[in-house]
Amino acid sequence: MIKSVRLEAGKPPESISLSDISRFLEKPRGIIWVSLEKASNTEIESILSGVFNFHPLAIEDCESIGYQTPKVDDFDHYLFIIANAIHPDANLKDLATSELNIFLSEHYIVTCFTDEAMSCVQNIWQRMSKDDRLSARGADFICHAILDTLVDEYMPLLDKMDEEVEWLEDQVLANPETATLERLLTLKHMVMSLRRVISPQRELINRLTRDEFLQISAVSRIYFRDIYDHLVRIQDMSESIRDIVSGAVDIYLNSTSLRLNTVMKALTIVSTIFLPLTFLAGVYGMNFKYFPELELTWAYPALWFVFLLIVVLMLTFFKKRQWF
Amino acid sequence: MIKSVRLEAGKPPESISLSDISRFLEKPRGIIWVSLEKASNTEIESILSGVFNFHPLAIEDCESIGYQTPKVDDFDHYLFIIANAIHPDANLKDLATSELNIFLSEHYIVTCFTDEAMSCVQNIWQRMSKDDRLSARGADFICHAILDTLVDEYMPLLDKMDEEVEWLEDQVLANPETATLERLLTLKHMVMSLRRVISPQRELINRLTRDEFLQISAVSRIYFRDIYDHLVRIQDMSESIRDIVSGAVDIYLNSTSLRLNTVMKALTIVSTIFLPLTFLAGVYGMNFKYFPELELTWAYPALWFVFLLIVVLMLTFFKKRQWF
Amino acid sequence: MIKSVRLEAGKPPESISLSDISRFLEKPRGIIWVSLEKASNTEIESILSGVFNFHPLAIEDCESIGYQTPKVDDFDHYLFIIANAIHPDANLKDLATSELNIFLSEHYIVTCFTDEAMSCVQNIWQRMSKDDRLSARGADFICHAILDTLVDEYMPLLDKMDEEVEWLEDQVLANPETATLERLLTLKHMVMSLRRVISPQRELINRLTRDEFLQISAVSRIYFRDIYDHLVRIQDMSESIRDIVSGAVDIYLNSTSLRLNTVMKALTIVSTIFLPLTFLAGVYGMNFKYFPELELTWAYPALWFVFLLIVVLMLTFFKKRQWF
Amino acid sequence: MIKSVRLEAGKPPESISLSDISRFLEKPRGIIWVSLEKASNTEIESILSGVFNFHPLAIEDCESIGYQTPKVDDFDHYLFIIANAIHPDANLKDLATSELNIFLSEHYIVTCFTDEAMSCVQNIWQRMSKDDRLSARGADFICHAILDTLVDEYMPLLDKMDEEVEWLEDQVLANPETATLERLLTLKHMVMSLRRVISPQRELINRLTRDEFLQISAVSRIYFRDIYDHLVRIQDMSESIRDIVSGAVDIYLNSTSLRLNTVMKALTIVSTIFLPLTFLAGVYGMNFKYFPELELTWAYPALWFVFLLIVVLMLTFFKKRQWF
Amino acid sequence: MIKSVRLEAGKPPESISLSDISRFLEKPRGIIWVSLEKASNTEIESILSGVFNFHPLAIEDCESIGYQTPKVDDFDHYLFIIANAIHPDANLKDLATSELNIFLSEHYIVTCFTDEAMSCVQNIWQRMSKDDRLSARGADFICHAILDTLVDEYMPLLDKMDEEVEWLEDQVLANPETATLERLLTLKHMVMSLRRVISPQRELINRLTRDEFLQISAVSRIYFRDIYDHLVRIQDMSESIRDIVSGAVDIYLNSTSLRLNTVMKALTIVSTIFLPLTFLAGVYGMNFKYFPELELTWAYPALWFVFLLIVVLMLTFFKKRQWF
Ligand SMILES: [Mg+2]
Ligand SMILES: [Mg+2]
Ligand SMILES: [Mg+2]
Ligand SMILES: [Mg+2]
Ligand SMILES: [Mg+2]
Ligand SMILES: [Mg+2]
Ligand SMILES: [Mg+2]
Ligand SMILES: [Mg+2]
Ligand SMILES: [Mg+2]
Ligand SMILES: [Mg+2]
Ligand SMILES: [Mg+2]
Ligand SMILES: [Mg+2]
Ligand SMILES: [Mg+2]
Ligand SMILES: [Mg+2]
Ligand SMILES: [Mg+2]
Ligand SMILES: [Mg+2]
Ligand SMILES: [Mg+2]
Ligand SMILES: [Mg+2]
Ligand SMILES: [Mg+2]
Ligand SMILES: [Mg+2]
Ligand SMILES: [Mg+2]
Ligand SMILES: [Mg+2]
Ligand SMILES: [Mg+2]
Ligand SMILES: [Mg+2]
Ligand SMILES: [Mg+2]
Ligand SMILES: [Mg+2]
Ligand SMILES: [Mg+2]
Ligand SMILES: [Mg+2]
Ligand SMILES: [Mg+2]
Ligand SMILES: [Mg+2]
Ligand SMILES: [Mg+2]
Repeated sequence: MIKSVRLEAGKPPESISLSDISRFLEKPRGIIWVSLEKASNTEIESILSGVFNFHPLAIEDCESIGYQTPKVDDFDHYLFIIANAIHPDANLKDLATSELNIFLSEHYIVTCFTDEAMSCVQNIWQRMSKDDRLSARGADFICHAILDTLVDEYMPLLDKMDEEVEWLEDQVLANPETATLERLLTLKHMVMSLRRVISPQRELINRLTRDEFLQISAVSRIYFRDIYDHLVRIQDMSESIRDIVSGAVDIYLNSTSLRLNTVMKALTIVSTIFLPLTFLAGVYGMNFKYFPELELTWAYPALWFVFLLIVVLMLTFFKKRQWF
Repeated sequence: MIKSVRLEAGKPPESISLSDISRFLEKPRGIIWVSLEKASNTEIESILSGVFNFHPLAIEDCESIGYQTPKVDDFDHYLFIIANAIHPDANLKDLATSELNIFLSEHYIVTCFTDEAMSCVQNIWQRMSKDDRLSARGADFICHAILDTLVDEYMPLLDKMDEEVEWLEDQVLANPETATLERLLTLKHMVMSLRRVISPQRELINRLTRDEFLQISAVSRIYFRDIYDHLVRIQDMSESIRDIVSGAVDIYLNSTSLRLNTVMKALTIVSTIFLPLTFLAGVYGMNFKYFPELELTWAYPALWFVFLLIVVLMLTFFKKRQWF
Repeated sequence: MIKSVRLEAGKPPESISLSDISRFLEKPRGIIWVSLEKASNTEIESILSGVFNFHPLAIEDCESIGYQTPKVDDFDHYLFIIANAIHPDANLKDLATSELNIFLSEHYIVTCFTDEAMSCVQNIWQRMSKDDRLSARGADFICHAILDTLVDEYMPLLDKMDEEVEWLEDQVLANPETATLERLLTLKHMVMSLRRVISPQRELINRLTRDEFLQISAVSRIYFRDIYDHLVRIQDMSESIRDIVSGAVDIYLNSTSLRLNTVMKALTIVSTIFLPLTFLAGVYGMNFKYFPELELTWAYPALWFVFLLIVVLMLTFFKKRQWF
Repeated sequence: MIKSVRLEAGKPPESISLSDISRFLEKPRGIIWVSLEKASNTEIESILSGVFNFHPLAIEDCESIGYQTPKVDDFDHYLFIIANAIHPDANLKDLATSELNIFLSEHYIVTCFTDEAMSCVQNIWQRMSKDDRLSARGADFICHAILDTLVDEYMPLLDKMDEEVEWLEDQVLANPETATLERLLTLKHMVMSLRRVISPQRELINRLTRDEFLQISAVSRIYFRDIYDHLVRIQDMSESIRDIVSGAVDIYLNSTSLRLNTVMKALTIVSTIFLPLTFLAGVYGMNFKYFPELELTWAYPALWFVFLLIVVLMLTFFKKRQWF
Repeated sequence: MIKSVRLEAGKPPESISLSDISRFLEKPRGIIWVSLEKASNTEIESILSGVFNFHPLAIEDCESIGYQTPKVDDFDHYLFIIANAIHPDANLKDLATSELNIFLSEHYIVTCFTDEAMSCVQNIWQRMSKDDRLSARGADFICHAILDTLVDEYMPLLDKMDEEVEWLEDQVLANPETATLERLLTLKHMVMSLRRVISPQRELINRLTRDEFLQISAVSRIYFRDIYDHLVRIQDMSESIRDIVSGAVDIYLNSTSLRLNTVMKALTIVSTIFLPLTFLAGVYGMNFKYFPELELTWAYPALWFVFLLIVVLMLTFFKKRQWF
């Protein structure tokens, strides 16, 4: 689907047709925003190549499926930006990303995505009619608004991961099960993936803030810096989550060997008590002809006294060693 | 709460009203310090936006709750600084931070925080009437004094953590319990959080020392360098604590398997002694018709001699192997 | 084998002889591409030294067998490039590389390899007659096309490794065997080797993009940047695979100790139940003259009740502790 | 204690009084060296502030107790240097440092320490009357001589640690005890502390070599480079010690589980041999009326043969599995 | 021993005396090479200080025993280079290094070593009479030839280590013994030491390639770059060996706990089978007056059936759990 609109300060947004775009590009007045949503390859080629005449490599990037690393390419007359939105699944099992492509010049902004939906683009498109600033401040400010929304959408995931990790940390102390370890490792996995998406995205925004691109005014650069701060914070949080996960895995692994210790102590206590007793009972079960103790009336009760003495002594010994 | 004061070299601080501030900003004489304490969003907007006309992104940062990474933003006419004070809880379980925002220009300093209290600001406010240097040396020197106090407040925490880690290190050798491991991991956790607060704070102070900001005189830069030295030292100490914690965790984990060894040795010694004895007793408890040994008078005492011999030989063998 | 061809925009490729090359070098028109395939040292020396007079060190690099790190050397009139294609074996056990040497100037490109085959060179050679762009855009574009194909050939390996690691991750949870660990470690090994090939290759392409080599036009630089993006993505994927492998090894190692726990619990349950029972049976097998219990008619059935009571109590105790 | 001396090329050192210093500073001839040893705060303030008028922050650093990170501060007319000498205790248990402060200008050098003694300063003070070069080459050469001696004093510690680690490495193989682990961890601890002292010290000397400080002549810079080489070597050695310690800890930890294996094998061999034997003896101790074997004359000796057969078979089986 | 020779393009090398050197230095024609082999301190001082008047710090470095980090010092008129050759012992147990000192100017090269022999110097000395290029291309080319040979001598060690690590990797799977672990750790140790020698050597060669030293012509710089490539490759290989060693140690450590699992399973199977059997035998060995089962004729054979049933059931259970 292709949507296009012309914006001018103080005026409401005006929908335009494809032929208007070509006329506008020859003689720009105000700015235009063309949005390719759930774009097919035919749409991409007819607009991006046919109308705007963008570089074939940039168009190839728009068309190619599969994850692409965020970046900004400077094609003199326009910037080509790749950014990635995230779509965590409900159970925090996997991190799906969807790609947003932006072409930014002084006079226009073209956004393009091939996935079903891209909320950051669609939100800003709707805000256009209400928020005057979007019309008044140029294409770079619209680009900022879209990327700011895209980055803001990372926060709920991080909050969810933070909650999950807190819960798992408590769980690992109270009731360390294999399922807990698996969830910890899945979470670690997700944080690692997240970091690999965020890190080049941060570098991308940093370049928009720092490099003197003609397409981005000095005033807008401060706004991109605000997105940068957000990404720094998100990276901080993900590192923090990774640290807690590592600590929780350590507690888990130690709990495994602690339980082994408990099991072995139980076995050792029972064995060291009953093996000597059983031996003694075996001795007085022997069938020797000459066996003086067997004749004594007090021998049997006396042996029970010895049995009890051994048990008490053993238990005292293990108690002293804090085995239970 | 909003407090404001005008300072001039050689004169006592003079309280001023909000309307005085506007007049001062048009025609500055001396410097003013405006302090927003436990500030509500209404106060922030009326002063920072209404009176000072600061950038909306900076005001957004002042209003937003939640941790923000320390930074300095250069808005040409003024610097906007975010720093973080720390509030460790009494049991060293968690590291709470509270945010301080500073707007610094040649002619004024505006400090702002939304939390209950911020001792570094309040201490310097009180010192103002006693310490002439604060009036005489300009807004950048007041800014230095506040940040110096903020950083100095990290030291008691580090000393406490240092004490705790020393105690835990001894504990882990003397009496390694799960509680000790948990405290170690909590401490490691805190050191990691601390490092993430200190590192950008250090970078922030470093920029104030190194970048040639108009708002900071060459003379003051040396004073910011003094804060930088402190932060380097604090970072060093936190790395040192992290190393000791790691070492202590290693000792702890090894103690777990050492204790397992002890337990298993006890079991093995008792089993290898009594299993053969019990077998022998079992043999002489058999009911064979033809069983010549049972008839011999010396057989029973002789068997006891064999029992003792086996015990002594086994114990000698284990002693040689240093099993106890 | 030596193949050589002259290319001019708008004309079909024209095969040329060795003597044509010498004449061309004196008075270039269009560009030539000389391809040494499965080259012997005699061929290398006669062409690269005899005809082109390349630097002896570059020729030494072409002749030397054994892995060489990717690089680009600038010999003023021409660039000398070493790149490495990969040949993973079918079972993902080992990573064989084969070396491609390229000499690039404004007027010619010379490719050279000593191995049996090099598909990226041979593919482009065949594409030459169909794709006009190769004739029209100069030697640097042909160089790009070859390196792009060489890098694209990495993808199938990474996809295979990705599949393998996913399978192993599931395997390690369902059925952790030594063979699984060995395959995980082999995979880790391969990822490490791969990273060591990719990293300097990425640096090589980066230099071709960034350094202002006379042999590479500004237009072509964007195309090399496209290869660079691919290598960044490949490095990302290999890091991701390495992370999953590490996580899987962790699960595997923990499964080993979990199984030990299961084994020891079984032993402990059986021992702690039967050792007391056997002791009691031993007691009533003793031969004391004075042994009142033996005379009672209800003693034997009563003892069986005690036996069962002990078993039930023990099992309840272990059940409560969740030992099974 | 305050000592001061005036040095001129070709003349013996001449002791001077405090008032001479003030006169010298107005009209310098030759160079002076003022040494504050075991300095009290009164002495520091009267000389460093009163006579030399040094910056209050530098004086604060001299007075402050507690470890300070090595650094050099450039106060235009003079450099302020903090370096740290080390005092390892005899048992290699802890690494005490003591701080040396140096103020260096073209015309004077002021050294200051608050600890009991500082051998590097005191050695050079004594060498002054013997070694002409110290008088002839200026204050920067004296500074070099002091810092060179300070760094040379690190070597004996590193040699001692090297010896200790070699001994511990052999010990861990021959006789791995908890005490060995503790010493290894203490050593690791010390190496880590040492690295944290050396690393900024190396950076400090590097800056003296590289930055173009007015106070240090081009000729002297080569001499500071010689100290730098020493620190590089010291850092190398400490990394090497750290590596060997890590390796030794690995061997130690494995020895713990190897010993557990040995213990468990002993238990298993004894149990698997005697449990079946005891069962068989128990069988022939049963009191069944109908029990044909008990009547046979050869049954008892035959059973002993079976006992021996079981023992031999079991031992052969374990021998084959290389269990002993 | 001191050897010296004068080289001129197109002429055979001509031996010269010490007095010739002094005369040459005043009025150089061609180049000279002075080689101090197995040099005593007297020789070093008479030649390096007396004749060449080199800097005392460089001479100190030549005389000092013990390992010195590779480096290049620029003394304006000449470069001072320290490089390290390696002498692995036959059993790959330890890595001995021997130091080579080179003084390089436009007109002369002085090589100096204090050890018994230095093959790279001696080889080039012999090649001098055969290889014209050494005479024709200047002192920097001779320096390159020596360092190239020195670096080439690292390869056999790396090949040997590579072979050793491959053998150990197989060994650790087939037959993991403590000796294997020790050899792995020794190898890891050696790789670490090697890396610490190679890394500054690489930096040294890199500086000779990159820094614009007057003593090294642009043409020679390409030759030093060839040595640099070699060192990069050597460093790569050593990292690869380190990785394989780590992987092999992991397999080894896991094999220890796998064997513990096997041992414990054996114990558990034997115990859980025979403890119940022994209990039952004990029951029918009791001496109760009222014991109805003992009177039944079919009781004894029936019990053997029960015994066998228990054994079969248990073995089926363990078989199902894949315990053997
Ligand atoms: Mg795409
Ligand atoms: Mg640009
Ligand atoms: Mg997608
Ligand atoms: Mg945002
Ligand atoms: Mg926002
Ligand atoms: Mg919690
Ligand atoms: Mg913000
Ligand atoms: Mg805030
Ligand atoms: Mg807060
Ligand atoms: Mg401070
Ligand atoms: Mg202070
Ligand atoms: Mg202690
Ligand atoms: Mg200070
Ligand atoms: Mg080759
Ligand atoms: Mg090959
Ligand atoms: Mg490609
Ligand atoms: Mg392509
Ligand atoms: Mg999966
Ligand atoms: Mg692309
Ligand atoms: Mg001090
Ligand atoms: Mg001290
Ligand atoms: Mg020295
Ligand atoms: Mg010296
Ligand atoms: Mg040794
Ligand atoms: Mg030296
Ligand atoms: Mg030497
Ligand atoms: Mg040596
Ligand atoms: Mg070589
Ligand atoms: Mg060579
Ligand atoms: Mg192999
Ligand atoms: Mg080469």
